Amino acid sequence: MTTTQVTLIQIDNYGPWTVTPEPRREMDLQTLQSRLFADIAQFVGHRDAYVFFTRFDNMIAVTNGVDGAAHAALQESIGNRYPVSISLGTAVAERPVDALEAANGRLQFEGSAQDEGRTEVLAGEYLAETTPGDLQIAHFDVVDTTGKYTDRINEFDTFINIEQAYASLMRNLRETHGALSFFVGGDNIISVCPDLPERAFADAVAHVEDDVDVELQVGIGRGESAHEAGFAAKHALEDCRRDGTSVELFGPRAVSD
Amino acid sequence: MTTTQVTLIQIDNYGPWTVTPEPRREMDLQTLQSRLFADIAQFVGHRDAYVFFTRFDNMIAVTNGVDGAAHAALQESIGNRYPVSISLGTAVAERPVDALEAANGRLQFEGSAQDEGRTEVLAGEYLAETTPGDLQIAHFDVVDTTGKYTDRINEFDTFINIEQAYASLMRNLRETHGALSFFVGGDNIISVCPDLPERAFADAVAHVEDDVDVELQVGIGRGESAHEAGFAAKHALEDCRRDGTSVELFGPRAVSD
Amino acid sequence: MTTTQVTLIQIDNYGPWTVTPEPRREMDLQTLQSRLFADIAQFVGHRDAYVFFTRFDNMIAVTNGVDGAAHAALQESIGNRYPVSISLGTAVAERPVDALEAANGRLQFEGSAQDEGRTEVLAGEYLAETTPGDLQIAHFDVVDTTGKYTDRINEFDTFINIEQAYASLMRNLRETHGALSFFVGGDNIISVCPDLPERAFADAVAHVEDDVDVELQVGIGRGESAHEAGFAAKHALEDCRRDGTSVELFGPRAVSD
Amino acid sequence: MTTTQVTLIQIDNYGPWTVTPEPRREMDLQTLQSRLFADIAQFVGHRDAYVFFTRFDNMIAVTNGVDGAAHAALQESIGNRYPVSISLGTAVAERPVDALEAANGRLQFEGSAQDEGRTEVLAGEYLAETTPGDLQIAHFDVVDTTGKYTDRINEFDTFINIEQAYASLMRNLRETHGALSFFVGGDNIISVCPDLPERAFADAVAHVEDDVDVELQVGIGRGESAHEAGFAAKHALEDCRRDGTSVELFGPRAVSD
Repeated sequence: MTTTQVTLIQIDNYGPWTVTPEPRREMDLQTLQSRLFADIAQFVGHRDAYVFFTRFDNMIAVTNGVDGAAHAALQESIGNRYPVSISLGTAVAERPVDALEAANGRLQFEGSAQDEGRTEVLAGEYLAETTPGDLQIAHFDVVDTTGKYTDRINEFDTFINIEQAYASLMRNLRETHGALSFFVGGDNIISVCPDLPERAFADAVAHVEDDVDVELQVGIGRGESAHEAGFAAKHALEDCRRDGTSVELFGPRAVSD
Repeated sequence: MTTTQVTLIQIDNYGPWTVTPEPRREMDLQTLQSRLFADIAQFVGHRDAYVFFTRFDNMIAVTNGVDGAAHAALQESIGNRYPVSISLGTAVAERPVDALEAANGRLQFEGSAQDEGRTEVLAGEYLAETTPGDLQIAHFDVVDTTGKYTDRINEFDTFINIEQAYASLMRNLRETHGALSFFVGGDNIISVCPDLPERAFADAVAHVEDDVDVELQVGIGRGESAHEAGFAAKHALEDCRRDGTSVELFGPRAVSD
Repeated sequence: MTTTQVTLIQIDNYGPWTVTPEPRREMDLQTLQSRLFADIAQFVGHRDAYVFFTRFDNMIAVTNGVDGAAHAALQESIGNRYPVSISLGTAVAERPVDALEAANGRLQFEGSAQDEGRTEVLAGEYLAETTPGDLQIAHFDVVDTTGKYTDRINEFDTFINIEQAYASLMRNLRETHGALSFFVGGDNIISVCPDLPERAFADAVAHVEDDVDVELQVGIGRGESAHEAGFAAKHALEDCRRDGTSVELFGPRAVSD
Repeated sequence: MTTTQVTLIQIDNYGPWTVTPEPRREMDLQTLQSRLFADIAQFVGHRDAYVFFTRFDNMIAVTNGVDGAAHAALQESIGNRYPVSISLGTAVAERPVDALEAANGRLQFEGSAQDEGRTEVLAGEYLAETTPGDLQIAHFDVVDTTGKYTDRINEFDTFINIEQAYASLMRNLRETHGALSFFVGGDNIISVCPDLPERAFADAVAHVEDDVDVELQVGIGRGESAHEAGFAAKHALEDCRRDGTSVELFGPRAVSD
């Protein structure tokens, strides 16, 4: 069984800010958003957690092992260094989507994302301790992207294929299993999953191939933290690449990191 | 008629680098990618160009008004400050996708994106001068995202809706018109278009609503640079928001920026 | 009695890198250095430690409470994201300068700072636990800088005054007490001190006034971490500003952070 | 004869901001300051200008070739992305210090640096065109720093030596010639000078050796921009390193950049 701690990070009242007093330059907004994400990635990454950029104004993080004090420190530091502030809602559940739902509800309860008076909410429950295998993470990529796409067709058409694969996979794994899947650049998709058997991943790979004709492969890992599970998944994906298999669970080999 | 200068920015041999000598920590990769994008956004943004993160290892920029010397300066500066280097291919065409196709071909001609020996390619043709109205940009967003989605359902389910809308729109506008559309965070999608009439945008909005049941609105602008066209589009989108219309062309009002 | 854990952070073989194959653009070097410092400041800051930019290629940190695993994580993360790597030497002593001397010796023992083969050294001893009052930090600034200097004379002449004050103070406190003092911007100097009585600070203030005719004031704090001691010192300095006194120890008032 | 355009960059009302409502965490302030400097370094660097961190809340830039529109763009972009804003004063004179004095006066005329109502001042005169040789820049470093200091004594004592050399040189060149000298990290000092003969630099080197017993060497360059002059100076300094000379003017060799 998995135990997933999810944090929703929401920029307070961001939409209105971007057009007040008139629209701000798009490249400044892009810079602000991506640097804010990078700072959060460093903060949680050094605590073995993961954050995904999602829509940038709302980011989803898997934060097993990160306590309330650390969440407060992150919120204060962003408030000190950016022209915007963030609210953080955190919750724990077996299925990732249920944890997110509860985390998200804590912010929604406090008011609208565009309520000027609802800023720097910090609400949540945090795991008292972490346990080996609490998290299951799957790391997907597209088989031979460079050979089939990047080096042969134009980048936008490549991107359309990757996007269709992602849109198909994210929806399938969410509806079927309550997993949360995120595009992380290149041809990579990381899924935060409940406890799923190998067959579930083979089914997901088959679903995407049927649906949008893109061939995926996937490595799966377990761990006490997002980094530990994700790192095992990366190693398992390396096995797919080496052996030409499409689903690999991280096996008996010791994690070297 | 439009004249679009497109630059493809490709991190050299990035995939292999991310797993050598063994997989690198995901949050470090996310940080590296998003900061690299932010730096490029600042560089081109101050020259009134736009860049989109696309897949992060491949980024697409609209660079009317940015010459070869500036592209070389960007390449040198990234090489001085990052552990990876970038290749840049640039081309000009009426339709954005044709410009990208040509830009991309210049890199593909030099070798594979994963060829260790193919680094820091700088190949391209650049517009000798810019002309008013060279670019047409459309800025879409989802009608009442906060009320319908963000404040009501969980962030991942909101994101699924936005993603399905984006996947539908990007494909439709690319296939129908050769336009390049990019998700830029929140509920915003920016399309770099050829010369299209207002009706084409109404059709695209209708297509997405039929296809995935998400209601979009869109502001459209023309300009000599991506910033100028995009800024006019943002103002037009403000008109949609104010007036409840679904398609607005930037009109007789003077641009204030 | 104080117990100070000091870490020396040294960019490996940096001098030669800056001129290979020929001199790199100065603004790229400045950007690289200041962002590297900022990243380290974030990393250690969230662990309640302090780092000072010193010469940028060598930075000095006060790291009570930061263990060996965290130092290793910092080193790996920098190596993943920068074109340069860092070596870290750490040691503990009562007097800050003695801790630095020992920390520094650990790197010097492994080879020259410009030895190509000596990279990513990680050597040190770390405090097993922290104790209240382990650190004493003094925060100096110049009395009425804005009124006397910034608003009246040109910035460079202001800076000359601040620099002379800093050069005088750093030398005096190092020679007299083995304290390490760092200019941190504006008119602020932070000194990491051994256990010193209030009179020692009054003497230092008097020394600088005699030596270079700049009037300082100083707040002094104790704490278990650099942040805790430094934060108390900041509060004490606020008392100087409010009351017109020149030396304030953080007193009975509870720390609010 | 030289023609130097200098810009003073001042963070608006920064001191009060750092302690409102109570002191902000020092490492957040350090991060904010150094990233702000890095962003400005990138912005002006890509226009072949130089900026120096000076006191971080006040930065001095040499901006020949950067016009008023670019200064306005920088100001807007910082205002969009930081919790603080900046004021910019620019002026032109033969001697760097006179240009700074005039630039600085334009801000002082508008009000105090700590006046809440005096924000985002943009005042200045800008060179209509640049001319070869407008700028003279000298790049100093310490002879054999690594061998004499870095590898032998502790970093703070090394730093004391570098600081004393800098304090001595900055004052000497300012008083004697109206030059502005900046420590830029490591053992490097960059001086923006009026038109000075080789002998003036030999005198400065001798002065520092007499005054604080640190041996400097210096390369000198001329150029149309800070980058061009500074880059020539770097090449000349490489000649010092290679030939063991203490003053080198950039000679007949063609600039390779």
